[in-house]
Amino acid sequence: LFLTMRMLRIGLLGLGHVGSAVVEALGRHSTLLARRTGTTPALLRIGVRHLHKPRRVAVDPTLLTADAWDVVRDPRLDILIEAIGGVQPAASYLREALRSGKDVITANKQLVAAHGADLKALAARLGRAFLFEAAVGAALPIVQVIGAALAGDRIRGLVGVLNGTANYVLTRIEGGATREEALDDARARGLAEPDPHDDLSGRDTAAKLAILASLAFEVPVFPQDVPCTGIDALSEEAIRGAHRAGIPVRLIAAARRTGDGFEMGVFPARLAADHPLAQLVGPENGVLLYADLAGEVFMKATGAGGAPTASAILGDLARAAGRREDLSAPAVPAIVPLRSGNGIAADGQLVLDGWA
Amino acid sequence: LFLTMRMLRIGLLGLGHVGSAVVEALGRHSTLLARRTGTTPALLRIGVRHLHKPRRVAVDPTLLTADAWDVVRDPRLDILIEAIGGVQPAASYLREALRSGKDVITANKQLVAAHGADLKALAARLGRAFLFEAAVGAALPIVQVIGAALAGDRIRGLVGVLNGTANYVLTRIEGGATREEALDDARARGLAEPDPHDDLSGRDTAAKLAILASLAFEVPVFPQDVPCTGIDALSEEAIRGAHRAGIPVRLIAAARRTGDGFEMGVFPARLAADHPLAQLVGPENGVLLYADLAGEVFMKATGAGGAPTASAILGDLARAAGRREDLSAPAVPAIVPLRSGNGIAADGQLVLDGWA
Repeated sequence: LFLTMRMLRIGLLGLGHVGSAVVEALGRHSTLLARRTGTTPALLRIGVRHLHKPRRVAVDPTLLTADAWDVVRDPRLDILIEAIGGVQPAASYLREALRSGKDVITANKQLVAAHGADLKALAARLGRAFLFEAAVGAALPIVQVIGAALAGDRIRGLVGVLNGTANYVLTRIEGGATREEALDDARARGLAEPDPHDDLSGRDTAAKLAILASLAFEVPVFPQDVPCTGIDALSEEAIRGAHRAGIPVRLIAAARRTGDGFEMGVFPARLAADHPLAQLVGPENGVLLYADLAGEVFMKATGAGGAPTASAILGDLARAAGRREDLSAPAVPAIVPLRSGNGIAADGQLVLDGWA
Repeated sequence: LFLTMRMLRIGLLGLGHVGSAVVEALGRHSTLLARRTGTTPALLRIGVRHLHKPRRVAVDPTLLTADAWDVVRDPRLDILIEAIGGVQPAASYLREALRSGKDVITANKQLVAAHGADLKALAARLGRAFLFEAAVGAALPIVQVIGAALAGDRIRGLVGVLNGTANYVLTRIEGGATREEALDDARARGLAEPDPHDDLSGRDTAAKLAILASLAFEVPVFPQDVPCTGIDALSEEAIRGAHRAGIPVRLIAAARRTGDGFEMGVFPARLAADHPLAQLVGPENGVLLYADLAGEVFMKATGAGGAPTASAILGDLARAAGRREDLSAPAVPAIVPLRSGNGIAADGQLVLDGWA
């Protein structure tokens, strides 16, 4: 059956942290993607900066090219995944990929914040998909929730923690680390960029807030419209003192409708310890949405790192390919009660340590 | 422009709590839906049990019919929204609606748990939509997150609180109310059914878990497969004692893959007070997902009530109609900084009381 399936021919730009995670995830989940989309995913071309650099993932060297335009213009490809970052030349690559008939998926928040509206319009005109769930909060499914689940509702405002590195640094400092130790560990864990300036200055958060505000309020919002204060000026002692006082500091992104416009900002703020955003630890991101009908909707997930970003990209890939239900008769599962010692301690308390 | 728009002709079954909220929401959000879908939503026919009952919402009496088949077979309709509940005759209505070319949307968890797989197959064969975001957790966007955002990921397990009435009763008892007071208030607030037996026995939760497990694991799971213990046998004192001890009781739904099958159950369990499910208060529902690539993804929202359920139904409606981006040039918004006294107290603490 799989041999007769239509191929889903994929090109990838970038083989850094995110690109490598995408390659690994495509290998690991190829059967799952084939079953869910009715297509066989095949990675046919990868654009990299340096052809002969040592790599974390094993890739067939004949797939590599040092000229990104080889990938962008490859007429065989159905889908282009962009994981190089930066506004240019990424925007030119995505435009040309759309024009040459490809669906495009990006994890690039700076690009989406600056050119989301015109790329969306171009994709709509050409009947192609432009998808960017991974650009905000990695595994946080916020683009889908605003754009699809709440498509019939009116969002009044949102408050979130949208930068995994800044949150990791804040919570490590709360635990006693110095800012430099925390940043080094964030880099070692693949959370921070080599230059984490945008993470700590709030500019990365402002770009993500611009994307979410544009989606939620259906107006153009650009990063430079978002008033922004980072956490660079906060002393370690101020961060620890607020934590000890039960009102920990988080780097907050907030936006809401007013009578005739919008209030928006990125800024460090102290939160009551039981606020869901105060409870975000390490690289977690979270968003609280306020909607007319739904009321408050909160979600959190890992907001940085290769695998969580690849999860969002593969979700977009399945949607672009056409998510379909597997209508073959599935095996009837063997289901056993969870109560028989699994997950529940003898005193009735829930134990989920082994689940993650 | 709006005069030349294609109409989106809607039929509704049921004008109880959910149906009335849908009527209100369609009125309130008609401009928004028109802008986002490029169609003008028009409610053309409503099936009710009693034609002359007093109603909470004002509806044109000529839209009403006491024969549901009038709605199901009305050849003018594009979409049928089902809000009558129960497995039969709702399943027969939805099958006939699909066969006569309509997309169908339902908030009916018992129906989706029992017939989701065959309705999905029928809809796929006919090229129609069968959508049921509202059937699990009202405004909780869990069906979209599992089915779309995580479409490229593998879910290993999930743990949730899926019944707003049971959670409302538990947290009211924690606060000192008797079980009867809590239940009366839940009824008065439109959370509980007139007979809340399924809420407290766990059977309602088991139906929702069957739906989520079927989606997450791509296998058929039915409510009767789910081992189930409710909260009916828990004394008020046991609930209050666990709360005082910092390990509050919640009615938990849990399911995970094992080597050769699945472990599943619905049961009351005590949770550490800082567990996200322990912090669900009143009618809130929440789900924690464990996925291969994404890691842990948590979300919470109001899990019962008319407006939150209508939010999910209108989201499905927008998706069925074809969510599109508004490509006309939108007004450039007036954005003011949030920091200027709005939302942030003088001591730097975040104040969001006025937002909801």
